[in-house]
Amino acid sequence: MADVAAFTQALTHRPSVAMATGSPISLRVFSLNCWGIRYRSLHCTPRYEMIAELLSKEKHDVVLLQEVWSELDYLFLKKKLACSHQHSHYFKSGVIGSGLAVFSKHNIQDAFLYRYSLNGYPYMAHHGDWFGGKAVGLVILNVCGLTAHVYVTHLHAEYCREHDSYLPHRVVQAWELQQFVRHTSRGADLVILSGDLNMHPQDLGTRLLRTYTRLQDCYAETEKFDGCEEGFTLIAENPFTSKEELLPFDKGIRIDYIFFKGSKKVCVKCKLFSTTKGSVPGKPFPYSDHEALSADLLLLPQQVTEATGREHESCDTDALAELVNTVTEARTEVKVGLHYAERMRHTAARTGLLGLALLLLELAIGAVPWLTPSAQQPFPQASFYLLGALCLATLLGALLLYVFHCTQVKALQGAEDQMRLAVGALQEKLRGRPLGQPGDLLCDVGVPSEPTLLDPKE
Amino acid sequence: MADVAAFTQALTHRPSVAMATGSPISLRVFSLNCWGIRYRSLHCTPRYEMIAELLSKEKHDVVLLQEVWSELDYLFLKKKLACSHQHSHYFKSGVIGSGLAVFSKHNIQDAFLYRYSLNGYPYMAHHGDWFGGKAVGLVILNVCGLTAHVYVTHLHAEYCREHDSYLPHRVVQAWELQQFVRHTSRGADLVILSGDLNMHPQDLGTRLLRTYTRLQDCYAETEKFDGCEEGFTLIAENPFTSKEELLPFDKGIRIDYIFFKGSKKVCVKCKLFSTTKGSVPGKPFPYSDHEALSADLLLLPQQVTEATGREHESCDTDALAELVNTVTEARTEVKVGLHYAERMRHTAARTGLLGLALLLLELAIGAVPWLTPSAQQPFPQASFYLLGALCLATLLGALLLYVFHCTQVKALQGAEDQMRLAVGALQEKLRGRPLGQPGDLLCDVGVPSEPTLLDPKE
Repeated sequence: MADVAAFTQALTHRPSVAMATGSPISLRVFSLNCWGIRYRSLHCTPRYEMIAELLSKEKHDVVLLQEVWSELDYLFLKKKLACSHQHSHYFKSGVIGSGLAVFSKHNIQDAFLYRYSLNGYPYMAHHGDWFGGKAVGLVILNVCGLTAHVYVTHLHAEYCREHDSYLPHRVVQAWELQQFVRHTSRGADLVILSGDLNMHPQDLGTRLLRTYTRLQDCYAETEKFDGCEEGFTLIAENPFTSKEELLPFDKGIRIDYIFFKGSKKVCVKCKLFSTTKGSVPGKPFPYSDHEALSADLLLLPQQVTEATGREHESCDTDALAELVNTVTEARTEVKVGLHYAERMRHTAARTGLLGLALLLLELAIGAVPWLTPSAQQPFPQASFYLLGALCLATLLGALLLYVFHCTQVKALQGAEDQMRLAVGALQEKLRGRPLGQPGDLLCDVGVPSEPTLLDPKE
Repeated sequence: MADVAAFTQALTHRPSVAMATGSPISLRVFSLNCWGIRYRSLHCTPRYEMIAELLSKEKHDVVLLQEVWSELDYLFLKKKLACSHQHSHYFKSGVIGSGLAVFSKHNIQDAFLYRYSLNGYPYMAHHGDWFGGKAVGLVILNVCGLTAHVYVTHLHAEYCREHDSYLPHRVVQAWELQQFVRHTSRGADLVILSGDLNMHPQDLGTRLLRTYTRLQDCYAETEKFDGCEEGFTLIAENPFTSKEELLPFDKGIRIDYIFFKGSKKVCVKCKLFSTTKGSVPGKPFPYSDHEALSADLLLLPQQVTEATGREHESCDTDALAELVNTVTEARTEVKVGLHYAERMRHTAARTGLLGLALLLLELAIGAVPWLTPSAQQPFPQASFYLLGALCLATLLGALLLYVFHCTQVKALQGAEDQMRLAVGALQEKLRGRPLGQPGDLLCDVGVPSEPTLLDPKE
């Protein structure tokens, strides 16, 4: 219970004072998929008003929003939160934007965006994911002298769990997400990742992300939880949620997360994790079709010693073996996707060739009266032009599809190559190591590799 | 001259032994734009044979190639270099690939690719840059116990220096390149970046990259240089180079680079930097239309002390002020690009609307005989269908262009937002600091921010 006392103390202290004396710091994080498709999402404007009201009242340290598709809505929130959250960033990508927005009480020092290489198909316009350039955004915050790397992301939606044609895309997105987090979080005192992953806790992509980055799940790690059963973030009670889409999970599913990780400089604990529960007291409808997440984190600065560094770095052989299995599983899934993309590319090529052949045939037939003036035009003129236009449209359409599927094939091949390399490196590490030795492919936040070979004393 | 002796010693020592005793390590880096467009680049196959011969003879530690457009050529090199360079990686992206390949004598532990958000226009097919998904590839090497982050990249070509419509694209690419290098190189003992930047040494993008990352240019830093005048890598003497394209620089230009940076653990020196000189003795033609670069680096491991850490970290106010100016200049260039992209998007929208209006008008005229059976069909049927097809093609083409230019606008807006944020952060740093104080936005490789506030003693 000493921690609770420290937590209360932290809440009353001014942060900078807290840091100067080495006392704990409280950090409150909020995450919500706002379902902000203008003219399509129900009650969009009043819901944004409700969200702004909640945020300016609750004054979370960091607010991570997804599906803020319209910049006007971001600007509305920015205006409303001008007093409570002075710093903000809106990530732009794709055709309509990434939908990702960050509001913060702490200074945003830097921002960086990584667009996923795969993100659905432009011709599946009714799903729309391709048009929102799905990405992971990183903002670097100065939290009372600590460097916090805060990531917000939104992965491709799952439209049908049984026949999920987007699964390889989501697996590649999860792969790129863990790569981005791993490679950009070195040197961070604290890492926070939040967003709508569109994956259940035990799904391949979630496991891939968590085993590689060793991020901790607020729901699993919290000391106190207040929210929906099993931390569900899409629930049947929410009036905006289609009950049919949730089936066979009739109570709900958990696809939104807040993850965290400390470093050798800062130990992080989740004191309270909560979700909204489908309705808002005194309001006619909820904030969104997703439930909002809120985490109260406690940052406990610790003395950096050689021992803490090593302790933090240690990863056991079991974790490495699990990681090898997960990456291998992901590789299999990517291969399935690659097979499909290659087939689609092949189909596009064949269709294009067919269009070209028909066009040439038609031109040849059309040329008959020119070459032999006595011959009659074999086609009625209207059909001739219509057929010609159809052939040309087929040819051009197939060409565009061919180019598109080429990029898909390259992206999937690239991900598979990287996974093969990763499995090789992990296996080599496994082979060359007895049980319980420290690793450096995992858990590398804030722990630059030790200069073991540089020190002649060692 | 003590360094030269150490260098000779390093060459004769086995690397791991060298590291164990803290002795210097020699690292030889090679870079070449291979000009490998199958069926278009001259003497492609014999040139790859020459390159393979050179590399297997010279046995550089790290070989960084650009424009290896065909995977078959990469596989050919991989087979030929199986003995000299056991480790390799080929980065795939875009429609035909990124063209980036790495061959290494040292173990590749991890690979990661960042595709630039802007890279020319698909309808400028004769320039072709859009189809090669230009990117920066990162491989993490284990060089005798040191973690080396090695980057290879290729930016958009410059086709006309006077009226360079791709300048904003290249500036955004340089911006994203410095971001990627800065954010992913924390924790590295050694950073190497090489490639064809398609920018002169004093160009905005080069300055942006160098002032932000503080990478050192081998040509400027080398103790001994052997190569073309002023380090040119596109020279008039090269028979594959078009003399007209070089004008007004009649002798040549320098657009290929090898950059390096050490850390508090390793001091890096460039002992020898060389370029090829337009022809290869005993061969009928050169390796490529670009000159090849080769750098002999010397890594000097140093004892990590608090003093070295701080010394490495210090950046003066002048450097910060220069950086603010450079980023501001880049922002202006991005704004010019944004203005152009918005105009193109507007043009696409207007053209699309025009196509739609014509199509509707035509359909209305076509519907007249159906509505008033006594009226005659006002159009000859053939013209009717041809015009209809043309309107539809205009509409669809304009739609595709509109979608494309939307992504361009979003990417440019995103880069501009990030630059604005960066200028703000840098200015704040400048305002709050007297001359000569250490900085943390610059030079952060291997130097995690100090836990100044965590230590009650401070």
